[in-house]
Amino acid sequence: MGYVAVVGPSEASADELADAEAVGRGLAQRGHVVLCGGHGGVMEAVARGAADAGGTVVGLLPGTDRTAANPHVTVAIPTGLGEMRNALLVRSSDVVVSVGGSWGTLSEVALAVRTGVPVVALRGWPLPGDPALHPVATVDAALEAVETLGR
Amino acid sequence: MGYVAVVGPSEASADELADAEAVGRGLAQRGHVVLCGGHGGVMEAVARGAADAGGTVVGLLPGTDRTAANPHVTVAIPTGLGEMRNALLVRSSDVVVSVGGSWGTLSEVALAVRTGVPVVALRGWPLPGDPALHPVATVDAALEAVETLGR
Amino acid sequence: MGYVAVVGPSEASADELADAEAVGRGLAQRGHVVLCGGHGGVMEAVARGAADAGGTVVGLLPGTDRTAANPHVTVAIPTGLGEMRNALLVRSSDVVVSVGGSWGTLSEVALAVRTGVPVVALRGWPLPGDPALHPVATVDAALEAVETLGR
Amino acid sequence: MGYVAVVGPSEASADELADAEAVGRGLAQRGHVVLCGGHGGVMEAVARGAADAGGTVVGLLPGTDRTAANPHVTVAIPTGLGEMRNALLVRSSDVVVSVGGSWGTLSEVALAVRTGVPVVALRGWPLPGDPALHPVATVDAALEAVETLGR
Repeated sequence: MGYVAVVGPSEASADELADAEAVGRGLAQRGHVVLCGGHGGVMEAVARGAADAGGTVVGLLPGTDRTAANPHVTVAIPTGLGEMRNALLVRSSDVVVSVGGSWGTLSEVALAVRTGVPVVALRGWPLPGDPALHPVATVDAALEAVETLGR
Repeated sequence: MGYVAVVGPSEASADELADAEAVGRGLAQRGHVVLCGGHGGVMEAVARGAADAGGTVVGLLPGTDRTAANPHVTVAIPTGLGEMRNALLVRSSDVVVSVGGSWGTLSEVALAVRTGVPVVALRGWPLPGDPALHPVATVDAALEAVETLGR
Repeated sequence: MGYVAVVGPSEASADELADAEAVGRGLAQRGHVVLCGGHGGVMEAVARGAADAGGTVVGLLPGTDRTAANPHVTVAIPTGLGEMRNALLVRSSDVVVSVGGSWGTLSEVALAVRTGVPVVALRGWPLPGDPALHPVATVDAALEAVETLGR
Repeated sequence: MGYVAVVGPSEASADELADAEAVGRGLAQRGHVVLCGGHGGVMEAVARGAADAGGTVVGLLPGTDRTAANPHVTVAIPTGLGEMRNALLVRSSDVVVSVGGSWGTLSEVALAVRTGVPVVALRGWPLPGDPALHPVATVDAALEAVETLGR
């Protein structure tokens, strides 16, 4: 059991949302605590998947209003840090899974690689190679990579 | 149901520890999420009480090492913020309960009053009066005050 | 030369403001970088004194709007941390001088004592004794204490 | 006059270091406050250039030790935020200039674009296009872009 952040854009495609939900469900079924940014899009999809499977979903919100959390978050922390909470999300995770791409997602992935937190990247933007960065093509591969990396 | 931070010194008297454990138990029984600093002393006692009652206990740790959390914390967040995490603890809570006194506890209580988060103070250091500050003499009074203030 | 934070209430008495301005002037004349919270009251008075003496005054603002700084700050940093910037102010200083009292000021003084940053307290609220806490009665005594403690 | 962060890798090529120093010099000559991460490589080169031109160079250090700053920083702020200080650097700047590429640099550039802070990118990694992102090929073009964007 570990702590896995799932990051991704608030405006996402249907495929990305479906993948995020499946990743959240799979992580919860494997006993992991799921962390996310607490808002919509990929953040909401992963929370829905994890919560439906009975998991714990921590939402680290950028603002100070707890009610801004999506309804699937089970522990909502209004950090008031703005986008600086991205760094808190990365720091408090054993592994980061990214689903899809955006500038915010890129900042999280880059910070994770920079600080040595392994990243499993599903459907993301093209990036330079790095030992800490693990591109995968399917939800199942993402979940398997988390198991391997989280040990 | 709300989010209640319980703050207090890492080196505490037997009475303070007993009170903190009882506060944690009572908060969990009433369905609140308990937040604490994640380390020893009052932080560990309140976590033990809440966890024994089946509650969720979030530990916001000052360092980057999750294993520094006391064993009763159910969600451990290594913030890497140092003592700045005291401010995160206050910010992410609906009500703060202080048990006992120390300089760290004082910083949290003062910040809570400053930012309008109600404080229930049990066995604390003497402080100036303020509408946001609610000194109480017993665990039961503390729990009752939380119910009133958290609404 | 060192880095000295001067903290105090945004709503202060005429005596407190005069003292804060004199402290700022004296610190700048002695070659120290002055840090403050960047807003009004004691924060503005100390900035005015230091800037008038040609010093560097860093304002660590709670919000994200640089124009909220008082006009005497020479380096304005909009931290966006809210009241969490109090902890940044304490952390980045060699010595903290408090002028007057308020809940915000108390949170900064307590955090400084907690983390071992020496505090020179002028006209402050009554506090428990501690080796890190140095109550003084005059501006001159405050400036002398800074020189001794900052070494 | 504005506040301009210059970001880049701590391990940089001779060309990148020369460019960073020239950017620092040019920014200081135009009256801007220069912010950087306070350590070596591009951070030191830009600080050297700006300080040689008599400018103010703020170093936002990741650790709590002020002496870790490179010798050209004129105001050293030990934030104790770790790599989270990258976000503080972006937030407190009107424009970000990146010189060269690294994962840390990428995290800063991506966060700036995400939060609407214009980025002037000199010799950086390839990135998707965005209205906030301004790739340039020379130091002069970088300095001109800062003047245009900072208004």
